[in-house]
Amino acid sequence: MHGKNPKRMANNPSRIHIFFMFQITFLGTSGGTPTVERGMPALALKYESDLLLFDCGEGTQRQLMRYKVGYGSVDAIFISHPHLDHYLGLFGYLETLRLSSPSPRHLDLFLPRGVEIADRYPFATVAQLKKKDLLKKPDYEVSAIPVKHCRDSFCFIFREADRIKFHEEKAHSLGMSGTMFKEIQKKGKVKTGTGEVLLSDVSWVKPGRKIVYSGDSAAGEEIIEAAQGADLLIHEATFDKARKTEALERLHSTAEDAAGIAKRAGVKRLILTHISPRYSEPSALLEEARAVFPETEIAFDGMKVDL
Amino acid sequence: MHGKNPKRMANNPSRIHIFFMFQITFLGTSGGTPTVERGMPALALKYESDLLLFDCGEGTQRQLMRYKVGYGSVDAIFISHPHLDHYLGLFGYLETLRLSSPSPRHLDLFLPRGVEIADRYPFATVAQLKKKDLLKKPDYEVSAIPVKHCRDSFCFIFREADRIKFHEEKAHSLGMSGTMFKEIQKKGKVKTGTGEVLLSDVSWVKPGRKIVYSGDSAAGEEIIEAAQGADLLIHEATFDKARKTEALERLHSTAEDAAGIAKRAGVKRLILTHISPRYSEPSALLEEARAVFPETEIAFDGMKVDL
Repeated sequence: MHGKNPKRMANNPSRIHIFFMFQITFLGTSGGTPTVERGMPALALKYESDLLLFDCGEGTQRQLMRYKVGYGSVDAIFISHPHLDHYLGLFGYLETLRLSSPSPRHLDLFLPRGVEIADRYPFATVAQLKKKDLLKKPDYEVSAIPVKHCRDSFCFIFREADRIKFHEEKAHSLGMSGTMFKEIQKKGKVKTGTGEVLLSDVSWVKPGRKIVYSGDSAAGEEIIEAAQGADLLIHEATFDKARKTEALERLHSTAEDAAGIAKRAGVKRLILTHISPRYSEPSALLEEARAVFPETEIAFDGMKVDL
Repeated sequence: MHGKNPKRMANNPSRIHIFFMFQITFLGTSGGTPTVERGMPALALKYESDLLLFDCGEGTQRQLMRYKVGYGSVDAIFISHPHLDHYLGLFGYLETLRLSSPSPRHLDLFLPRGVEIADRYPFATVAQLKKKDLLKKPDYEVSAIPVKHCRDSFCFIFREADRIKFHEEKAHSLGMSGTMFKEIQKKGKVKTGTGEVLLSDVSWVKPGRKIVYSGDSAAGEEIIEAAQGADLLIHEATFDKARKTEALERLHSTAEDAAGIAKRAGVKRLILTHISPRYSEPSALLEEARAVFPETEIAFDGMKVDL
């Protein structure tokens, strides 16, 4: 069973948190046009009971079914930029929600200027994308940073909240039990049978994880800054380095560019996506990226990454 | 090799017409929402070198690739009615054509009121659907007949031109050769070395074939009339007969309805499509239809029918 409230569990060391789902599923990994193997851009991020979509290209609703990602339970959709291949599937998904239930669950849409939906979806709230924190939850937040591609192009940063972790044995030996764990987090200290205990004496901070998705983006300082120290960078790699000129002209990145960004941003891991249909066998892309940044993989449709 | 001009070939009995492609491919056979197995409504009709699409639901461009139906060589698209599940894929396909070539081949679009495309597709000509012959070619024509579903709902009739076939042995025995075969078709008679030969003496008329696609349609007289004597009726079967009330309310057909229409219209063959996602195993639909009209099949994605 997945816990319904990870916050509560994290704050309550007396319960063992058996499952904590933090999983990314690549729903579509092609760039521009689909292929038989690769669908249009979309990726799902499941964080405990929340399900977020980043981009929603044509066919995304079917990919959600195909790869068994909580179809019908998406909480928020973020569209990186107003190019049709990144958002056409939104309309099909909204229509399916509307038809399948008299009262679909609430859905937050974060859309760049130029992407509009009909007014027959009262269950959806639309916010226009801006450079800012878009979604703030107790356990995570999602923010958008402008990148160079077309007008209103953004990358997205998913940042997990830092967590307080207890040295349980030490805390217990100092007399802590039950609600004292809550109290010490609120007040920074707590009185036990053996005296006063300071939070810093019995706990440590586990930094939240950071995932960055580039959307479509030319190689540039913006994305390097946004990706700084990320646990995972998901970056477009529309071209190989032999097509650097084309990448520059069209404000896309090469696999080598993406690897350079990963290296300079000091990320832990890089996954390339938005692979041009011309690369039916993208091993050359992988090779050129790994030469710069070894911890690189290439996404495929249905690829799941547990974090 | 497929001939480029079937008309010329048919009129020239000295050439053997080795391949004459007349094939239907079911690209998407679900109704309303997709499933893992069934995509959104679309079917392709390949008639010699012409490729026509009827409906173009979300994901059709990828289905064209998946089922190897001349991707990028569609000549005309007919949208049966203005419900999103039947036309969303049009936008993805148009965008792909625009991006993939500086001058895509000409495309005729026949769209019901309520379906509009952006003006960045100069290669596409849009005609509004009306009750009439839509497309007239030397070898076939496509017409639309209103049916009961939503506003501006149509079924489509594909009618092959009748062909003159020669009793070749008899014609030759009466002295006919070479260009005389063309002349006799124009004038109804021709002079040979042995005297005058009448067209009716040396030829017979092979009636053109007729295929009817219902689009979404309630059972009604319109579709029975439209389907009269068809070689193939492709009819929606959104519900089973136990859900007749729902079918009536929503102006759809049951499998039994479709079979009744096939029977009353005296068609040769019936294929059911637009199967509701609730029927993961549609054998009950097939059974109830065959009880009324034995020559029934159920379409599946990728099903090809050679005519």
